[in-house]
Amino acid sequence: MILILKPNIDADSREYKRLESYLVGLRGIETRIHKVQGALQQITEVHLIGNTAALSLDEMRALPAVEHVIRVSEEYRMLGRHKDDSRPAEFNYQGLTFSQDNLHIFAGLCAVDSAASVEEMMKALKANGQVCTRMGAYKPRTSPYSFQGHGKKCLPYVFELAGKYGIKVIAMEITHESHLDEICEALETTGQPTGVMLQIGTRNTQNFELLKIVGRQQEFPVLLKRGFGITLDESLHAAEYLASEGNQRIIFALRGMKTNIGDPHRNMVDFAHVPAVKRLTRMPVCIDPSHSVGSRHRSSDGILDLFHITAQGVIAGANMILVDFHPDPRSAVVDGPQALRLDELSHFLDDVHIVRQAYETRRSRTYVATAK
Amino acid sequence: MILILKPNIDADSREYKRLESYLVGLRGIETRIHKVQGALQQITEVHLIGNTAALSLDEMRALPAVEHVIRVSEEYRMLGRHKDDSRPAEFNYQGLTFSQDNLHIFAGLCAVDSAASVEEMMKALKANGQVCTRMGAYKPRTSPYSFQGHGKKCLPYVFELAGKYGIKVIAMEITHESHLDEICEALETTGQPTGVMLQIGTRNTQNFELLKIVGRQQEFPVLLKRGFGITLDESLHAAEYLASEGNQRIIFALRGMKTNIGDPHRNMVDFAHVPAVKRLTRMPVCIDPSHSVGSRHRSSDGILDLFHITAQGVIAGANMILVDFHPDPRSAVVDGPQALRLDELSHFLDDVHIVRQAYETRRSRTYVATAK
Amino acid sequence: MILILKPNIDADSREYKRLESYLVGLRGIETRIHKVQGALQQITEVHLIGNTAALSLDEMRALPAVEHVIRVSEEYRMLGRHKDDSRPAEFNYQGLTFSQDNLHIFAGLCAVDSAASVEEMMKALKANGQVCTRMGAYKPRTSPYSFQGHGKKCLPYVFELAGKYGIKVIAMEITHESHLDEICEALETTGQPTGVMLQIGTRNTQNFELLKIVGRQQEFPVLLKRGFGITLDESLHAAEYLASEGNQRIIFALRGMKTNIGDPHRNMVDFAHVPAVKRLTRMPVCIDPSHSVGSRHRSSDGILDLFHITAQGVIAGANMILVDFHPDPRSAVVDGPQALRLDELSHFLDDVHIVRQAYETRRSRTYVATAK
Amino acid sequence: MILILKPNIDADSREYKRLESYLVGLRGIETRIHKVQGALQQITEVHLIGNTAALSLDEMRALPAVEHVIRVSEEYRMLGRHKDDSRPAEFNYQGLTFSQDNLHIFAGLCAVDSAASVEEMMKALKANGQVCTRMGAYKPRTSPYSFQGHGKKCLPYVFELAGKYGIKVIAMEITHESHLDEICEALETTGQPTGVMLQIGTRNTQNFELLKIVGRQQEFPVLLKRGFGITLDESLHAAEYLASEGNQRIIFALRGMKTNIGDPHRNMVDFAHVPAVKRLTRMPVCIDPSHSVGSRHRSSDGILDLFHITAQGVIAGANMILVDFHPDPRSAVVDGPQALRLDELSHFLDDVHIVRQAYETRRSRTYVATAK
Repeated sequence: MILILKPNIDADSREYKRLESYLVGLRGIETRIHKVQGALQQITEVHLIGNTAALSLDEMRALPAVEHVIRVSEEYRMLGRHKDDSRPAEFNYQGLTFSQDNLHIFAGLCAVDSAASVEEMMKALKANGQVCTRMGAYKPRTSPYSFQGHGKKCLPYVFELAGKYGIKVIAMEITHESHLDEICEALETTGQPTGVMLQIGTRNTQNFELLKIVGRQQEFPVLLKRGFGITLDESLHAAEYLASEGNQRIIFALRGMKTNIGDPHRNMVDFAHVPAVKRLTRMPVCIDPSHSVGSRHRSSDGILDLFHITAQGVIAGANMILVDFHPDPRSAVVDGPQALRLDELSHFLDDVHIVRQAYETRRSRTYVATAK
Repeated sequence: MILILKPNIDADSREYKRLESYLVGLRGIETRIHKVQGALQQITEVHLIGNTAALSLDEMRALPAVEHVIRVSEEYRMLGRHKDDSRPAEFNYQGLTFSQDNLHIFAGLCAVDSAASVEEMMKALKANGQVCTRMGAYKPRTSPYSFQGHGKKCLPYVFELAGKYGIKVIAMEITHESHLDEICEALETTGQPTGVMLQIGTRNTQNFELLKIVGRQQEFPVLLKRGFGITLDESLHAAEYLASEGNQRIIFALRGMKTNIGDPHRNMVDFAHVPAVKRLTRMPVCIDPSHSVGSRHRSSDGILDLFHITAQGVIAGANMILVDFHPDPRSAVVDGPQALRLDELSHFLDDVHIVRQAYETRRSRTYVATAK
Repeated sequence: MILILKPNIDADSREYKRLESYLVGLRGIETRIHKVQGALQQITEVHLIGNTAALSLDEMRALPAVEHVIRVSEEYRMLGRHKDDSRPAEFNYQGLTFSQDNLHIFAGLCAVDSAASVEEMMKALKANGQVCTRMGAYKPRTSPYSFQGHGKKCLPYVFELAGKYGIKVIAMEITHESHLDEICEALETTGQPTGVMLQIGTRNTQNFELLKIVGRQQEFPVLLKRGFGITLDESLHAAEYLASEGNQRIIFALRGMKTNIGDPHRNMVDFAHVPAVKRLTRMPVCIDPSHSVGSRHRSSDGILDLFHITAQGVIAGANMILVDFHPDPRSAVVDGPQALRLDELSHFLDDVHIVRQAYETRRSRTYVATAK
Repeated sequence: MILILKPNIDADSREYKRLESYLVGLRGIETRIHKVQGALQQITEVHLIGNTAALSLDEMRALPAVEHVIRVSEEYRMLGRHKDDSRPAEFNYQGLTFSQDNLHIFAGLCAVDSAASVEEMMKALKANGQVCTRMGAYKPRTSPYSFQGHGKKCLPYVFELAGKYGIKVIAMEITHESHLDEICEALETTGQPTGVMLQIGTRNTQNFELLKIVGRQQEFPVLLKRGFGITLDESLHAAEYLASEGNQRIIFALRGMKTNIGDPHRNMVDFAHVPAVKRLTRMPVCIDPSHSVGSRHRSSDGILDLFHITAQGVIAGANMILVDFHPDPRSAVVDGPQALRLDELSHFLDDVHIVRQAYETRRSRTYVATAK
């Protein structure tokens, strides 16, 4: 059961104290407080864990500090959509709103290879009006003998260049808690020129210890990729590890499933789950067409599979796109074959724009609303 | 190697005779003649099988009967896209053109349960300007104790009602060669009021004997569904069984893969393969959203997953949609949970129209052509 | 519900007539009679289909013709193991008993390529005391351009050579009903020198029309292979198509699942399902190590993977082994890489013998019985 | 390329110095030194990384410090079996030898729930002559709201009880580097009464940062479980992360793959890969029947699937068994349905013994050796 308290309630107020003394009196019920910072106000949620079936909704609602009561179902306690659950599916970061209703594009380098590449990329983003990017500093690789990313060494110039070209948020994968410290330090050293969205990759979707640590900090939002050998349900439960530790600023990313059924694509594209994740949870949903497709093949209509697969996510309501570009794909140290060229960035944005408009037209039809 | 002969060439002409005598002289080469009826003219293809590596393209081109020579790659000899292969990716049936460039919608009953249902469906189709439908008479079911379809008993009224309401093509699954005879007979008895597209279901994708028999007749086009436990490559090879027997009027259908990775959908949606199949072969590509999704759930934006998944196929260039409707889904004997209601037909068509327009806008962009 | 009648009951007897008149009086219940020929006697089963929940077991038991009553669960009506179901899990053919308690080895040619190969194989089998074999005349192949088997042309010499070398049963795949006629004809022409076990391959596991036709004849037992893209449950339901048409002489074969998770083996070995199928149904279970492994690699202990995987099936109680041999694997037209050489036949039999003995020792332990 | 130096070579010796100066002179070659402690002597391996194709084997062999030179293939540099690679596939720990030639059984608690359970388990192990066990203190669970294990709190009594009952090695999963410190501390506090084999679970197979940390310590051997959504090849590469950091005392564990193809078992049993892993690498191979099967069902022969699946691993040469027992499976907090009872321990050991003997008989056949 979740009690949504009145906005901006003061922990020293009389009504809050009365709530506390009431809760202390409940036997066999554990209490957890979560504070959710919205665009306009701070919401306090009180989560009651244990044998809540016996609790009275009416008694709860009668408490003066309580604005709303949600009886949660078993699944996805923090992030799920429960009955009478009107909590928003959005959060703010760096002046941007991330929600199930809008769309952000994070085009960038799969792996940072040099300051020159980073600058070319940033320059192209700025020229195309983009304020978000992806930059891979820590690269988990199948083999220990492959390039593992430049790590903390590249952070200062990545952040500085981001600031120089007006980038507000960089999606960056981390694979160990120490990377979080390194990112904080580099941001501080460089004067906080940009923001970071921490990315948890598909190999670490069930690295619960890392999720807990990332969940305990509330500075950076988290982009959690679906695990490639587990069910969707299990990946959504992994997101609960983040949320239950306190950080609900989570975007869930689909990136394709590893199975030869997906050939000739690199992975089996799973963007049909975009509407499903939005139904099951309140998380915005990201798609990663680059890792799904893994090549630059194009269809008989002359359009790249990469564009087509991106369009499939967007037409179904995807809220974020993570896509690989590179100034010179042939020389990229990681995943070059799937990277788009910088001169294709405007085409890509144009293509996404057409599709997003079609999605918004679909959504505006009256039968959509009335059919609910 | 394939020799494309001059259009409408006469088998009694001197140049044709000269070709024949030339081919007889080739050692270790088997010859197969395929006639392909296009919209305007008949094309004769001569397929040379065996050790063709040693043959001279120039000699072939010099033969007066020969217009064009294609050196086929190993894969998909009849249906693939080979170098210098300009054969069209389309065919005509019942006055309609089926190609990789356009889109047809086949809304209808998964399983025929009564003449009343059929008439209600046909009426709704006519009211919405539709001339194609799907009607299941022969139903392969997991258990022998489940309803197996009304079979040939329902054919007369299905065909008559189709004629009455102006339906030109019915997609109808067959699971045995005798069904082909039954369909021919019922069409004749009822005066050929409509046309039929023979559907081979996912359980019979590698029922090669059935494919050969269906491939030997050229009256009906064939809708071949992808096999659900095999690779895409294997399913495309299955289509070659149809083509190599003489029938190249084939549409390839994606219908989802059977794996629990696809949960909560009934199957793992595989429409990302729409552009891939169009690149690898010259077949138009159909999508079957009903069997892929298997439910009437809707996303947080109020749109049904069924609509979203259909949109994903269409935005990537799908050429045909096979979709289940029913006048009363709750009473449907087969797959009721995934059927749309008749009052949703206009919404569905409207939604598809929006998305198809977006696809055509995407395709018209200049960078698409220039990037080829 | 299934009524097991008294052994060898006469359809003209008074008690049988009384049963018939009783059954006619049951409303909404359909009746099917199945006769099962056992080693010593013929068993008549009366299957009651429909709303049987309301029927009284006591009334049924009181009928003089009835020896035993089984209330079937939903699953696997004919072949399943129901409560109080003591029907035997075995059948006889050509003087051999096939049951869940014993083991038969079918070593032979994946594909018949020449009479010489067949004779060499048969000779080796006789020299090693074998009376069963596998011989592929009809070969379903992924591509229509691959060798499709010698078909009916090879049947006469295959059957004659079988007779010459004392082979009692040949497992032979068929892919169309006409093959059944061709086999019957060739057996008759050659004087019934041997027996045939009809094999339904993994591509036809859900070719229900073929299953029904094969199920309607009772002359030949059937070896049904598991479908490679469907669940075990669905494959077991396919076996019901055979049984519900009248033929319960079925062996269920495991042959590996198609998924890259099984690499470096050709398929993902699924022999862990040997005990599961024996628990769920009364069918003897066959394993096909050749198609599962697909190569001649050996482990660091010097033993071929083919031997190891066979051993895994046998140690868990497999009842039949289908294994590819060839006089000259390098020249085999189909699946040469997975074939064993004739000089390895005695090693193979020796290895299987060691493992089967261990299985029988395991089964004889007192705690096995008492733990039931 | 790997240089195996003379046993027990002194880093201050003249021949070692000469080797060093030679290596320094090689351009573009990185050098890593690995020391491998065998039963009798310490082996020093010098790994040359980079463009080694141009190096001369003869020059290397001529160096007085070098005993043997191995040109490694691309795959599994440290753990693979390369040409002329006679390095042993074994290691010692706590007086026990773990190798590809023998078998150890680790029966124990999936999750430690109380000191009483631990003591009952230990007592039963001692009574049955066992010196190894499994004990789960840190439990990664799909949901953050499930029991996560007693963690470091239970370590002191687990270790003390192990010592009291003569247990030499406990397999224990860790999910974070801090658990390694906690285990070291608890062992020290309790006086090192037993040894620990660090277990990396299937969710962390590609948690490369954890693997690197565990690989850097050489005190504890590591049991690495296969990742459940990745290929075998990828899981074997994960083992290289351990080895390349210095710890080659690794056992590779098969535990079933997550896919509904495995139903009705909890996972798809993958023990057919036992011989494959032993061929591809020098790691001993462990099987985990409990997590593969996930239930206590038994076959029609009265034997538990758990026993059958264990037998399948052992008959193919498995070197270690990880199996769940519990004094009272119904009250177990984690995975009770798959646990065996303590009174079944002797049956289990008896069953394994029969099968292992059969395996050893198979291995002793002369044709095995000669066929190599």
